[in-house]
Amino acid sequence: MSDLQTPYYLIDLAKLRVNMERIRYLRERSGAKCLLALKCFATWSAFDFMRDFMDGTTSSSLFELRLGHEEFGKETHAYSVAWADHEIDEALGYADKIIFNSLGQLDRFGAKAAGRGIAMGLRLNPRFSTSGFDLADPARPFSRLGEWDLNRLEAALDRISGVMIHYNCENADFELFDAQLGRIEAEFGGFLEKLDWVSLGGGIHFTGEGYPLDRLADRLRAFSERFGVQVFLEPGEASITRSTSLEVTVLDTIHHGKDVAIVDSSIEAHMLDLLIYRETAKLPQDGEHPWQVAGKTCLAGDIFGEGRFPRPLKVGDRISIADAGGYTMVKKNWFNGVGMPSIAIRDEDGTIRQVRRFTYDDYKASLS
Amino acid sequence: MSDLQTPYYLIDLAKLRVNMERIRYLRERSGAKCLLALKCFATWSAFDFMRDFMDGTTSSSLFELRLGHEEFGKETHAYSVAWADHEIDEALGYADKIIFNSLGQLDRFGAKAAGRGIAMGLRLNPRFSTSGFDLADPARPFSRLGEWDLNRLEAALDRISGVMIHYNCENADFELFDAQLGRIEAEFGGFLEKLDWVSLGGGIHFTGEGYPLDRLADRLRAFSERFGVQVFLEPGEASITRSTSLEVTVLDTIHHGKDVAIVDSSIEAHMLDLLIYRETAKLPQDGEHPWQVAGKTCLAGDIFGEGRFPRPLKVGDRISIADAGGYTMVKKNWFNGVGMPSIAIRDEDGTIRQVRRFTYDDYKASLS
Repeated sequence: MSDLQTPYYLIDLAKLRVNMERIRYLRERSGAKCLLALKCFATWSAFDFMRDFMDGTTSSSLFELRLGHEEFGKETHAYSVAWADHEIDEALGYADKIIFNSLGQLDRFGAKAAGRGIAMGLRLNPRFSTSGFDLADPARPFSRLGEWDLNRLEAALDRISGVMIHYNCENADFELFDAQLGRIEAEFGGFLEKLDWVSLGGGIHFTGEGYPLDRLADRLRAFSERFGVQVFLEPGEASITRSTSLEVTVLDTIHHGKDVAIVDSSIEAHMLDLLIYRETAKLPQDGEHPWQVAGKTCLAGDIFGEGRFPRPLKVGDRISIADAGGYTMVKKNWFNGVGMPSIAIRDEDGTIRQVRRFTYDDYKASLS
Repeated sequence: MSDLQTPYYLIDLAKLRVNMERIRYLRERSGAKCLLALKCFATWSAFDFMRDFMDGTTSSSLFELRLGHEEFGKETHAYSVAWADHEIDEALGYADKIIFNSLGQLDRFGAKAAGRGIAMGLRLNPRFSTSGFDLADPARPFSRLGEWDLNRLEAALDRISGVMIHYNCENADFELFDAQLGRIEAEFGGFLEKLDWVSLGGGIHFTGEGYPLDRLADRLRAFSERFGVQVFLEPGEASITRSTSLEVTVLDTIHHGKDVAIVDSSIEAHMLDLLIYRETAKLPQDGEHPWQVAGKTCLAGDIFGEGRFPRPLKVGDRISIADAGGYTMVKKNWFNGVGMPSIAIRDEDGTIRQVRRFTYDDYKASLS
């Protein structure tokens, strides 16, 4: 525990290294390249540490693209569900590859990219996914994400050298990955073998405990060799899982039929996906005392979840909320004007340094 | 339409005036004071316009409190679900009244407030509400919001001069308001008559078309006179409803079984409540051509909703999304690094002026 003012996100480089080493191992054994998905994690103070273990970044907007190019470097993939006319020239200045979401976007901007000598790709939607949540399912009916009609894909072949296929979501099941990649091979194999590269996107939870990394690596190598393509993966959560916590302090205790601790944070403001996906935070579960941990916004449902603690909680107690690195800092917001968590890094020697503190001036400047 | 780069929030002062005039009328007829709820709308560039029509602001955090005190002025109510020890002195420097969420917080900080001569209140939770959404229902089981036990409320009487009772949520039904206020009178009347002031919170949609404003005013005046209290209301959405739009541009059109227009915005990033509450945006509905309007993030469910248009949409078309002022700007975020909408104000003479533009540097500084 440090004496930094809570709340703060704490990125632990020793824990991050565990993921990074697995990524390096996978890259070496499989030949696949791994690009950090900035939509999940874009805390650029950690990039110096991560750079040696990864091949570059991928993006979902002009700003992420620029951040990846300028702060991470190495290979930079540019993807956006839709580029605007006023963005494309700048985007091409940062991109090593640009991946269009639709044939329409390729038609609109392909000549510009070709003129700059930037390799192009399309997003291929295989019309299935591992997502159990309709909101996040790219294969949902009428999905706007990517192309699936082979005639349309073939019509792009004179311009593209690869495709991006993002269809996994927190998929920790190698057998499922293997089976679905088999479907892609069966349905799109004839098309894929005409390409130079295939990105299989993110959402494969291959840095998790017990994941059969060797089998994944060998499967990716076989895929790569069968179709003669460079494989890319785009790990987001897999890159930073279990590396980051949200450190909070109990401000009040409430006992209206349940023991509730109100802390100096908020799921809506600081861990938004808990609210969107109706999930609960990873709270301490060691002890005889069950407590609900709740946020300090006006939202009645601003509840992190139920934890267990060795002693009844009291004002001033510190709580560490685990696995708070992915899709948190990138979408934190000023709901209720609640103080935004600082960002801190624990170096491998144990030193904790604050890399960003947010003040009233930041809050005020978020509006006008 | 202006030539500002989309996306932008557009606050129309002529439309805002309609709400403001209704608020002024209600204040005059009822004797109630109306405080802007900054948790809903805190775009301080509009405060010069709103100030003459309202009595001040109420807040849900230290930062909102400071913004209200410094930028709006007049009467400033300080509420927070939980104050931190390191916040309280600063908070008392801005507050005209401070409303504690719990007896525990009053016990912890009451002496400090008394020492500064700041009037104090407690949040009273009547254990019913008009919310149809559990997430937003302050009367949900084990709610941490406010006190309801009369013994605990009475224990505070030596220190507090009023209470805040927030239990309405987008309540456009005066009969329901009347009936629920009757319940409060019946259950808590003996307590209320010992107080100097009662805030009935926000969530009363009294600026809506057809709302019986005179009946509300008379009901509030009767309540005020019966218990000898100054009544406060805390309109958030009611203050700014129908005044603000989100202006976007079509970037791509997709036809995978449905006509979909992808625009340069996102519900998750720019109109977050649409996602949290699974609601749809107020889109144009005039025309023969039904189109889905979707955002440009990677989220499969980033969908504003279904509109109808006089002609098929095409790239470059502008769309105005209505009623985008409440709980939008205050919780916008950098998800996917999507360009954040500017904030613009249309003056009553029709002039549109941009009051805030967000750049890559803002995005980068949101992390570290």
